[in-house]
Amino acid sequence: MKIKLGMVGGGTGAFIGEVHRIAARLDNRYELVAGAFNSDAGRAKQSAEALGIEVDRAYADFSEMAKAECAREDGIDVVAIVTPNHLHHAPAKCFLEAGIHVICDKPLTSSLDDALDLKRLVDETGLLFAVTYNYSGYPMVRQAREMIRDGDLGTLRVVQVEYAQEWLSTDLEFTGQKQAAWRMDPVRAGSGGSLGDIGTHAFHLTEFITGLEVKSLLADLSAFVSGRLLDDNAQIMLRFANGAKGSLWASQVAVGHENGLRIRIYGDQASLEWFQEQPNQLKFCRLGANAQYLTRGGVTAGTAANSASRIPGGHPEGFLEAFANLYRDFADRIESFMEENPINDVDLSVPSVAEGVKGVRFVEKAVASSENGGVWLNMDS
Amino acid sequence: MKIKLGMVGGGTGAFIGEVHRIAARLDNRYELVAGAFNSDAGRAKQSAEALGIEVDRAYADFSEMAKAECAREDGIDVVAIVTPNHLHHAPAKCFLEAGIHVICDKPLTSSLDDALDLKRLVDETGLLFAVTYNYSGYPMVRQAREMIRDGDLGTLRVVQVEYAQEWLSTDLEFTGQKQAAWRMDPVRAGSGGSLGDIGTHAFHLTEFITGLEVKSLLADLSAFVSGRLLDDNAQIMLRFANGAKGSLWASQVAVGHENGLRIRIYGDQASLEWFQEQPNQLKFCRLGANAQYLTRGGVTAGTAANSASRIPGGHPEGFLEAFANLYRDFADRIESFMEENPINDVDLSVPSVAEGVKGVRFVEKAVASSENGGVWLNMDS
Amino acid sequence: MKIKLGMVGGGTGAFIGEVHRIAARLDNRYELVAGAFNSDAGRAKQSAEALGIEVDRAYADFSEMAKAECAREDGIDVVAIVTPNHLHHAPAKCFLEAGIHVICDKPLTSSLDDALDLKRLVDETGLLFAVTYNYSGYPMVRQAREMIRDGDLGTLRVVQVEYAQEWLSTDLEFTGQKQAAWRMDPVRAGSGGSLGDIGTHAFHLTEFITGLEVKSLLADLSAFVSGRLLDDNAQIMLRFANGAKGSLWASQVAVGHENGLRIRIYGDQASLEWFQEQPNQLKFCRLGANAQYLTRGGVTAGTAANSASRIPGGHPEGFLEAFANLYRDFADRIESFMEENPINDVDLSVPSVAEGVKGVRFVEKAVASSENGGVWLNMDS
Amino acid sequence: MKIKLGMVGGGTGAFIGEVHRIAARLDNRYELVAGAFNSDAGRAKQSAEALGIEVDRAYADFSEMAKAECAREDGIDVVAIVTPNHLHHAPAKCFLEAGIHVICDKPLTSSLDDALDLKRLVDETGLLFAVTYNYSGYPMVRQAREMIRDGDLGTLRVVQVEYAQEWLSTDLEFTGQKQAAWRMDPVRAGSGGSLGDIGTHAFHLTEFITGLEVKSLLADLSAFVSGRLLDDNAQIMLRFANGAKGSLWASQVAVGHENGLRIRIYGDQASLEWFQEQPNQLKFCRLGANAQYLTRGGVTAGTAANSASRIPGGHPEGFLEAFANLYRDFADRIESFMEENPINDVDLSVPSVAEGVKGVRFVEKAVASSENGGVWLNMDS
Repeated sequence: MKIKLGMVGGGTGAFIGEVHRIAARLDNRYELVAGAFNSDAGRAKQSAEALGIEVDRAYADFSEMAKAECAREDGIDVVAIVTPNHLHHAPAKCFLEAGIHVICDKPLTSSLDDALDLKRLVDETGLLFAVTYNYSGYPMVRQAREMIRDGDLGTLRVVQVEYAQEWLSTDLEFTGQKQAAWRMDPVRAGSGGSLGDIGTHAFHLTEFITGLEVKSLLADLSAFVSGRLLDDNAQIMLRFANGAKGSLWASQVAVGHENGLRIRIYGDQASLEWFQEQPNQLKFCRLGANAQYLTRGGVTAGTAANSASRIPGGHPEGFLEAFANLYRDFADRIESFMEENPINDVDLSVPSVAEGVKGVRFVEKAVASSENGGVWLNMDS
Repeated sequence: MKIKLGMVGGGTGAFIGEVHRIAARLDNRYELVAGAFNSDAGRAKQSAEALGIEVDRAYADFSEMAKAECAREDGIDVVAIVTPNHLHHAPAKCFLEAGIHVICDKPLTSSLDDALDLKRLVDETGLLFAVTYNYSGYPMVRQAREMIRDGDLGTLRVVQVEYAQEWLSTDLEFTGQKQAAWRMDPVRAGSGGSLGDIGTHAFHLTEFITGLEVKSLLADLSAFVSGRLLDDNAQIMLRFANGAKGSLWASQVAVGHENGLRIRIYGDQASLEWFQEQPNQLKFCRLGANAQYLTRGGVTAGTAANSASRIPGGHPEGFLEAFANLYRDFADRIESFMEENPINDVDLSVPSVAEGVKGVRFVEKAVASSENGGVWLNMDS
Repeated sequence: MKIKLGMVGGGTGAFIGEVHRIAARLDNRYELVAGAFNSDAGRAKQSAEALGIEVDRAYADFSEMAKAECAREDGIDVVAIVTPNHLHHAPAKCFLEAGIHVICDKPLTSSLDDALDLKRLVDETGLLFAVTYNYSGYPMVRQAREMIRDGDLGTLRVVQVEYAQEWLSTDLEFTGQKQAAWRMDPVRAGSGGSLGDIGTHAFHLTEFITGLEVKSLLADLSAFVSGRLLDDNAQIMLRFANGAKGSLWASQVAVGHENGLRIRIYGDQASLEWFQEQPNQLKFCRLGANAQYLTRGGVTAGTAANSASRIPGGHPEGFLEAFANLYRDFADRIESFMEENPINDVDLSVPSVAEGVKGVRFVEKAVASSENGGVWLNMDS
Repeated sequence: MKIKLGMVGGGTGAFIGEVHRIAARLDNRYELVAGAFNSDAGRAKQSAEALGIEVDRAYADFSEMAKAECAREDGIDVVAIVTPNHLHHAPAKCFLEAGIHVICDKPLTSSLDDALDLKRLVDETGLLFAVTYNYSGYPMVRQAREMIRDGDLGTLRVVQVEYAQEWLSTDLEFTGQKQAAWRMDPVRAGSGGSLGDIGTHAFHLTEFITGLEVKSLLADLSAFVSGRLLDDNAQIMLRFANGAKGSLWASQVAVGHENGLRIRIYGDQASLEWFQEQPNQLKFCRLGANAQYLTRGGVTAGTAANSASRIPGGHPEGFLEAFANLYRDFADRIESFMEENPINDVDLSVPSVAEGVKGVRFVEKAVASSENGGVWLNMDS
């Protein structure tokens, strides 16, 4: 029996909606049966038809969808919310209130208050909630996390993380390009530009892999493109609870980078480096030894990596497979929930609402730090 | 309406069967509805059940399956054959005779006679036939082919192609490892070991990308592992019809290589290099200019690459996506066939039975050359 | 006629002394004729003998050497000072006062006061002074600088520079290792540890290549190794006079890095990346174009790079050749000085005392910023 | 006391002459005191003057030089011959007969008869002879050789070696470019074009590193550029005495390659890869383990590499340092000879006349094989 999936947003042509659909399909665990793909009724139907969804389950309004699906015997088990940031909170709330699990794109919301509201609701309902910090789905990211947990790096000292892209080097948001337009619009994106779009990924990846908590940060944000309303470059210093230091750079004016998410972690025994554009390998250097390259499917790949892999080493897996890993893991959670035998929550492989809240707090703290001239702010106060 | 797909071979646990299934699923164009996954009836049923196939369409015998499916109103449109080499010919023949299109793993057959027999049958029936030389599905492979067609390299002079793997560096076939056992067994694999398993991929890729035809070859085969019955290392010289020269190296005793398929092509105006383990880029060097890197989804990606891509540049696609491209393109062919409005056969994006025959001939010629001490043999006589 | 060179420090076995000697020798422009290689007279003589220097020009004391050489008709033209940081100021002063040009290793001095004192003296005497920020001698570094000057990158926005090494990941300074001992001793090194040793290189390289001036900085320094007296990791934010932002990371606890000096510069038209361990290439990305690699000796190498190259592209030049470029350029300066026809001072190819002062100021500002909790400090006040 | 060096050929402006001079100078072991830099007396004097050589030791004729230097008390100890190939034999013979050691550029001669003649003369005179197969001077090449000698790779099975350059992709020899003109002129270069210029390097490197002997070869040569008189592309198969197989590709029409000498060696226990353009590292893969990178100066660098290194790991050494290693090692030989206490000849670090003969035989065999349609020829008959 496949899990019945609905979708809010992601009409034909939207990039991330199609990614979610492929991710859901890859392992054959979900069936997409309902959707509010567009607030325009005609286009919503069109999208639904193109996706093979029955006409009566093509909604123009997410609240109507939540009500209707909740009422059906064969109603959806889970909804994927793939709208712009400011349209995460309302539908997420609505579906949670209708007793439906939620998969929500990141950042969780466009304001911290909204994020905390969802957190509260999840806690109250006991429903499952996933935030698609999809880079955590890469096998070698999980390998890195497992190695650090196992102590292979010793005590962590330094983290250098960066997420660099070129695509907003010019004033694309004023040219009618939709993806750029909402991302650089404070109303739709929230207070962070590159911070929210990619900085949150870098932040989540850092805490996910290292297992460390960021205690305080200091940010220097820029909007290099004339007329731009949100940051397109963020240089951020991190201090971790254990005394480690970090540097986070998120930029969408970094000419020459397509999707350059890179993380390097230095412990007193070894270091690791992972780069999203060549995701099937992990550079690993022990103190006083030669650099080596671990590969997905290779001899030293561990449990975490192998259980997130589908094919042998040397046969590259990519972005879609990593994204699908979140869907697959969440399917395990949902089925376990249905069987009233929940998987132990300690396993954080699927980022949840708590990580979602942290990501939004990261954005708000960074903005506040920068607005105050670049000062240190605690993450927890 | 999805295309109805059956499968022969590929029971639970088989590597390539699962790859075909994911490839078929990725773009939502096929529905797997029948299968002869195993010659043992019990295990065939088990596999079918695990795959969500109805019990009456789980066959233990492919000829029975062909007959039954052919008789059903909702019978399969196409069958995927994913058995070892010596079990390609019989089922392929059987399904063609039942009027069902065929997707067959490579090499086409374990003997040239069998290959020619299938070619004859395809010509007679007019049915569609695909051979899964899957590396031709990579976007940047198609980009390379398009650039060469467009004359970007000028007149081609030299091709250096290699396919290097480590996994048969020891006598794995004597340890009970199934994948190794049949690949190094002349009865099941045919006369080529690494030649058939990976050499045929390198050969096909060469002709696919360059558009050149290999006129003659000279091979020096080795079986370095003691007791091994087929070649595990093949060094081959190629002469192309246009005067270009080539070198092809296929090895499964190349310690350190996972799935190292690499091709470099030199023309009098420019050169190209593509490497399967980093498939989203293409090194391109014009005469007297700096080396540059084209990327999938990047600014200079052309029609062929873009139509084989699903997500933006910098978001790596991999082996499964490339494999899925063959399935997707073949779905277009099948639908066009059903509409009695066939796509023009000139487009060779989906390798067909003719390329399948060539691959088997390549194996047989290389074996003959080597057995005669390493002499030049024409490909066409 | 070769330029007559003396040396202070750099007895047999010292790393940097031998580097200076090879650099001086490579282009046959200097003759090493005198030295105070060691404060122990016996060992000073031994070193001199091994280096083919006449016994009466082997000094144990640099002030004696300055006096004696100044008095000789065939006295040295220039002295190279290759002692630990705290022993730069006194000999430099001494030789300047004796009318002898100076080549001084970096950082210029162990305190800003000393640095300013030397600057004053150079200004007064009109003598030539070089500080061996040797990374500025690499051809592709000069290529980068030339391209930026020529406007190839447009307006600069972001600089990411790092200098990462592993070698002080443990408490090496307490094991008797001499190189570590003085570098982590505040008396001999000054207030900066990794800051002085490698951070100053990164800082100089940044201003050298970009032509920008750092206006303010904020530093977060750590001494991760227990008992260590100076910083072994420095994370620093930079703000440039033109509004560009920068991030500088200097670390000697970065396991896995040998001598990882890397700089990336992003303008609104293009970006550049250079990495010291593969110094013969420069990654160059124009906005909206494919990444390309410029090479030393390659087709797009310009005047600055070519005049700093000795052999064709593809024949790697390295650290010694880059170091030798400073010596060669300084030889031009010295000869021009002798001919009373000085080369125009505008050409900063050879870092001078002014750059030396800046480097020391960088160290002191960074230390002050960090000691105050990580606050912004202006560089010029 | 420095060794007194003379030079034949290499007047101002010649590439390789200057390389030899820098190589001789780098370690301060030689003093260039005489030369026949040019057959034109005026230009010979000019070059000598520019190089600081006394006027009476600037010769226009090498035989005159041999006679004069032989007669001087302070005559040269060794001569470096850096003329085009056809002008190696006569001067080498002349200086040997005058009792002077010889350093000769490669290939040894333009014909096998000449090569054998020199071999005979060296054997008779007992003088020292070096052939500058300079790539054998790289520290990591020597590391590779040492590791193979020590059995780290187990039994060798496959060698893939290539030397690819772009620079003769067009008919440069007809444009007045001198370097191209003599290299593609059978009179001056001998029977091999790219074979002699770069193929001999690849061949020597193969035997040098592996310690294997090539037993037979088969070559397919091309001259792709219209009007060209010698090969510009050579594809060669190798069979080694121990049963290993090899493939050698030498091309000067390989667009995109500057000086792409790369060798990969596969044993039954491990493999190695070295690439001249990034010479300070060695990729090393043990069977069933992660790939690792050894570095010059790194923790696993052995005796051979370390004794050929001058500076620490991460500080790149290059082509000149490698070349200088031959000069340094040969200086040891010469000094040992002068002390009548010769270093044991078993150490082949400096390629001698025997390796020179082999290189010329390689060219002649490859040409013969290709002229006969591409047939196997034994190297020793």
